[in-house]
Amino acid sequence: MSGKLYVIGLGPGPACWLTPEASAALEEITDLVGYFSYVDRIEPRPGLKIHGSDNRVELDRSRAALKLACAGKIVGVVSGGDPGVFAMAAAVLEAVENGPDEWRALDIEILPGVSAMQAAAARLGAPLGGDFCAISLSDNLKPWELIERRLKAACDGDFVIALYNPASRARPRQIFDAFALLRRLRPENTPVVFARAVGRPDERITLTTLGEADPGLADMSTLVLIGATATHLIERPNKSPLVLTPRSYGAER
Amino acid sequence: MSGKLYVIGLGPGPACWLTPEASAALEEITDLVGYFSYVDRIEPRPGLKIHGSDNRVELDRSRAALKLACAGKIVGVVSGGDPGVFAMAAAVLEAVENGPDEWRALDIEILPGVSAMQAAAARLGAPLGGDFCAISLSDNLKPWELIERRLKAACDGDFVIALYNPASRARPRQIFDAFALLRRLRPENTPVVFARAVGRPDERITLTTLGEADPGLADMSTLVLIGATATHLIERPNKSPLVLTPRSYGAER
Repeated sequence: MSGKLYVIGLGPGPACWLTPEASAALEEITDLVGYFSYVDRIEPRPGLKIHGSDNRVELDRSRAALKLACAGKIVGVVSGGDPGVFAMAAAVLEAVENGPDEWRALDIEILPGVSAMQAAAARLGAPLGGDFCAISLSDNLKPWELIERRLKAACDGDFVIALYNPASRARPRQIFDAFALLRRLRPENTPVVFARAVGRPDERITLTTLGEADPGLADMSTLVLIGATATHLIERPNKSPLVLTPRSYGAER
Repeated sequence: MSGKLYVIGLGPGPACWLTPEASAALEEITDLVGYFSYVDRIEPRPGLKIHGSDNRVELDRSRAALKLACAGKIVGVVSGGDPGVFAMAAAVLEAVENGPDEWRALDIEILPGVSAMQAAAARLGAPLGGDFCAISLSDNLKPWELIERRLKAACDGDFVIALYNPASRARPRQIFDAFALLRRLRPENTPVVFARAVGRPDERITLTTLGEADPGLADMSTLVLIGATATHLIERPNKSPLVLTPRSYGAER
């Protein structure tokens, strides 16, 4: 007898950004699987078994979750943000692809959520108002040369850039290398945002420019936004400026 | 006395994807402003004045909403999906930038939502599992040459591509031109998805390849996903295939 596997997006943190679909799944599951920081967000309840695991063991965690579902459990693998955006959906599918046949027969449902770049953008105005791209700076799973190639292509296409996983204790330097590259390709007055822990008690948003930014501000909980050439500020009295990438291109401001 | 303006993301359609934050704002507002299709999703209630407007009048609608807020109303401008992703947040900010000073003093809050590419991705597995970009194909506000430049850059960077606004009655040909370009730059077996009205009663998802796709499937309600070189299918017994862009690059499948 076979269970079910949900891959549940918890959003950036606060309950106000958790979809009703995700809330309902969290009520239905018998087994909760995830990185400690994410499972800690869920209130324990009778009948819910919690399987917390360390960061950077996404495949092991996925396999454990698939085994539980095959044993008849209703399993929820939780992800911060949207599971489809640099989170657990791809890891679960990689495990399915390389696992036993019975995993392909499982009922698997991905529940989308608000991702960090959207929460950050909402705080600032409309920095993603034009075409944009999202790049993970982690070279744990892809070569740094590919990341450089993508940063260059993003500049060639004049996309707004959202950088996920900009830095961690094990990878403190990539964000410095990325900024060195971007500074050769985009004007130094390009708006840059470091949005840390948006929606959580330790939220900290830093609005700066490509020329003046300190890449050292980025950590594991930070989403970095790099404006396109049209991105600019709207100054306001007694309020922080709004950041706008206009929908139109080459138009008068 | 000054009111407030919310820009509210309604998500792709169903209530299960509407955030609690958006629901609370919809209860708080006195005035609801938006394109007819979006305001029609909201249950009328005593005390809520509804201002529906036609599509393609985003700036007029934004100005009307800002005037209401300046007159002391609690205004909600509603957007499908995420207001920050090819939706109303940028239009509202453009109106603020070019409007009277009092608009800059207003309390404006953007409420993020699940965007169409995320809902589409969730239905399919993990097509956005790697780096990706989002491009609006509408040339109402930017030159077609810029769109072509961005499609080329997206291929140079081997990004998964999410195409918003692929076609409308007034612009039926762009999606054909875009596919003609993409077919020169990506292999014909690249997975392609037409995700129409995801989450709504008329949802229709078509999984095909770049070589075989009929661009005529795209309309105003369609989100088109074009895989990167690593994007591929995971076949399943008695189930539709999953679409995966793996997190790792160049690894064995």
